[in-house]
Amino acid sequence: MFSKIFTRNLSTNVMKIDRKGYIPRRALLYVPGSNEKMLTKVPTIKVDSLVLELEDGVALTSKTIARHNIAKYLDNLESKGDHQCFELGVRINSVSSGLLLDDLKELSKAKQLPQAFMIPKVDSPEDLAAIWDAFRSTYGAERIQNSGTRLVIWIESAQALLDMPRILSTTLNMNKNAGFFKLDAVVFGSDDFCANIGATRSNEGTETLFARQRFVTCCKAFNLQAIDSVYIDIKDIEGLRRQSLEGKAWGFDGKQSIHPTQIPIIQESFLPPPDKVQWAKELIDEFVKHEQSGKGAFTFKGSMIDRPLLLQAMNIVQTIKYLENL
Amino acid sequence: MFSKIFTRNLSTNVMKIDRKGYIPRRALLYVPGSNEKMLTKVPTIKVDSLVLELEDGVALTSKTIARHNIAKYLDNLESKGDHQCFELGVRINSVSSGLLLDDLKELSKAKQLPQAFMIPKVDSPEDLAAIWDAFRSTYGAERIQNSGTRLVIWIESAQALLDMPRILSTTLNMNKNAGFFKLDAVVFGSDDFCANIGATRSNEGTETLFARQRFVTCCKAFNLQAIDSVYIDIKDIEGLRRQSLEGKAWGFDGKQSIHPTQIPIIQESFLPPPDKVQWAKELIDEFVKHEQSGKGAFTFKGSMIDRPLLLQAMNIVQTIKYLENL
Amino acid sequence: MFSKIFTRNLSTNVMKIDRKGYIPRRALLYVPGSNEKMLTKVPTIKVDSLVLELEDGVALTSKTIARHNIAKYLDNLESKGDHQCFELGVRINSVSSGLLLDDLKELSKAKQLPQAFMIPKVDSPEDLAAIWDAFRSTYGAERIQNSGTRLVIWIESAQALLDMPRILSTTLNMNKNAGFFKLDAVVFGSDDFCANIGATRSNEGTETLFARQRFVTCCKAFNLQAIDSVYIDIKDIEGLRRQSLEGKAWGFDGKQSIHPTQIPIIQESFLPPPDKVQWAKELIDEFVKHEQSGKGAFTFKGSMIDRPLLLQAMNIVQTIKYLENL
Repeated sequence: MFSKIFTRNLSTNVMKIDRKGYIPRRALLYVPGSNEKMLTKVPTIKVDSLVLELEDGVALTSKTIARHNIAKYLDNLESKGDHQCFELGVRINSVSSGLLLDDLKELSKAKQLPQAFMIPKVDSPEDLAAIWDAFRSTYGAERIQNSGTRLVIWIESAQALLDMPRILSTTLNMNKNAGFFKLDAVVFGSDDFCANIGATRSNEGTETLFARQRFVTCCKAFNLQAIDSVYIDIKDIEGLRRQSLEGKAWGFDGKQSIHPTQIPIIQESFLPPPDKVQWAKELIDEFVKHEQSGKGAFTFKGSMIDRPLLLQAMNIVQTIKYLENL
Repeated sequence: MFSKIFTRNLSTNVMKIDRKGYIPRRALLYVPGSNEKMLTKVPTIKVDSLVLELEDGVALTSKTIARHNIAKYLDNLESKGDHQCFELGVRINSVSSGLLLDDLKELSKAKQLPQAFMIPKVDSPEDLAAIWDAFRSTYGAERIQNSGTRLVIWIESAQALLDMPRILSTTLNMNKNAGFFKLDAVVFGSDDFCANIGATRSNEGTETLFARQRFVTCCKAFNLQAIDSVYIDIKDIEGLRRQSLEGKAWGFDGKQSIHPTQIPIIQESFLPPPDKVQWAKELIDEFVKHEQSGKGAFTFKGSMIDRPLLLQAMNIVQTIKYLENL
Repeated sequence: MFSKIFTRNLSTNVMKIDRKGYIPRRALLYVPGSNEKMLTKVPTIKVDSLVLELEDGVALTSKTIARHNIAKYLDNLESKGDHQCFELGVRINSVSSGLLLDDLKELSKAKQLPQAFMIPKVDSPEDLAAIWDAFRSTYGAERIQNSGTRLVIWIESAQALLDMPRILSTTLNMNKNAGFFKLDAVVFGSDDFCANIGATRSNEGTETLFARQRFVTCCKAFNLQAIDSVYIDIKDIEGLRRQSLEGKAWGFDGKQSIHPTQIPIIQESFLPPPDKVQWAKELIDEFVKHEQSGKGAFTFKGSMIDRPLLLQAMNIVQTIKYLENL
């Protein structure tokens, strides 16, 4: 299935926006690189984004074996057959951990790059210089540029939340100006954030209202996907559904899961509702007609349609197309 | 009534603050420039701020006729007699629409300028350069400077909300340094904001809590009026009252209305309560006495009174004076 | 007891963080410098941080006598015997009041400096230049540098809340680069903030949700204590407890009190719970062992431990040690 992802696209050149393959990330699931039994199951796991994990899910004493396992997995990717996920990513360790370079030395030995590199605890624009250096010195600039690999980063501290606009613009500029991977989604690391500000997590989540809503606003100001916090109470399915729907209503595009049982609840919650799908399809049809007519400003059902709205419609249609093909 | 607005003032020179005619904007009502029947009723509509509308309320195919109607209305303003509103503004189209210059070319043919120019979707400080250019090339710098016309702008995107302090300071500086209209109020465009971040609007409005409270904070940091979101459920009068009172309690000065039936509920909700009016009157009396005595710092009922508090008191008194004269 | 405060420390050099005497500020209590009867009771008041007050708690006509009383109190500090508070601070008047320099002229005559200087209404980084000038011209740079006195500042306006990151970094830099007092805690002045933005205070406090959560985030981004708003309804003990626990859950480290009866409720609410104390003790034990072993990255119970988490653990243990010694 992977190969299709990077070619799937809308036939029309919409407002000159390059959208090579929109990737829904309604749910993320972590698979620790040290867990060999779970690694063998990866091709069968149904989740939008599957994360091969080197960071918090792997004990310090198991980092070496986890790196080795993930590198081997990437090296033999073709032999694994089709995957049920939409994206296979690898989460490496953070700059502050001091483990990042060792991660990349090992991973870069594999023939293939993951479809997404996932970087936790990005705390400042300065972190990105260190990240870029580590990638360039292991993978080399050319291999990075030709990879088509996306970037997903985690915001997990007070400092990062305050400086988020600069972090996001710096990351996007590194793609434009230096050929680094393209930033596509940002994840809110709620547990580390709460530990950082000394807050106590509750099931209602009032303590992170400001953080989550500022987070969404920052992501959307840069047209990036926003991925919501984990819901730590695994047994509370109704609480998970409530918080998933709340996240969706607030503008989030997906949510982290900490257990496979959470995936269907989350993915169902983040599915666009039928009337929204209808709206999106009609809007795109209308836009294609409008493009052909060569007219100026574009209105649909009485509203002027701008770039973010058109992108929203395209993402909805692509999510649905993808699910229908699954 | 218009002529009185610009001369009404407190007799005393309060802390050197120039407050020529405070304009309450408890409710805003939009009248589409394309709706000729409704335009004839404009002089009789009782609302603090009445907005002759060229933007979202006017279909793309009707922009030309709407511009023409509004220009004609401004041209014959004296013949309309007294108006029941406190301010007659015109909302033009946004920079990104590409329609702004055509709006101003037509409007500038009228003898009179509106009392307020209202500009939607101001997304960045850079937008303001384009706005200033369009005004200067149509109205000319001199006519702008001598107009006494105020500026009201809309914040309607994630980018604008994040960059709001720079947007507001740039706009205020354009008045000081280049003689552009003086920014007086800022409106939160909640529908476009929610579409921009992908949020779903609810009657409770939790999804915009961060946005609305950040919005108020930014407005008040620059001593500007803050105008709240629309309440889209026209039939739910109690919901409208609840959200109006909530907005007032959070620091908003007014609210947009989408139907004339909403106006009395909104304007009643944003009326200062009697004890606050009493407080304001006594504070101003005390300040006038204090000024005459030539003393230093000013205290009232045990509190040191600073500039924002004094302004607050003056605005309350002027709102009440205005309403008593109505 | 004072003398012990500045020497108490953990024996191990933890990640090179200098923590000379962590000061818990679960509750702050103001004692007006003009209230001579209450001043005589100061040594017996049990509160974490006791604030000798020159600002809002003192009428303009009593500023002179209040300055004199506090200077005398500091001058004769040894003769007062042990105090029951953890910190004895002095709150001076703000830059904008025009009273700051006169405050410091009088206070600097005393032999001793307070353990903390507390400065209200810091509105901008520019205020800090004026503050530093006033201190240097009265106390002199050398006396300031050798004092060990801490700094606590108040954020009380929309402008200050928006510019908080720059205000905090400027203040911390003035300690590093110019030898000014070290900033240790920041207090949210909720009443003045609400007056500034025109909000109405309620017991539930929804109107300040954004402000309080942004405030905590800014404090924690700079590793500073965050002190919460006052609870104005003195008779509502359950409301006070609810809001104290809410503040604690959101990441605040303490709360202002406006009456001695509020102190026990507040201090109990901000006490770390037993399981958190246990966690902190074990983490620190583990860290000391780890340090001696000379290993690299440090994990505890499966999580990588970073600097903010270690600091959190130390603060918890020091708060508990202090209370056991009381």
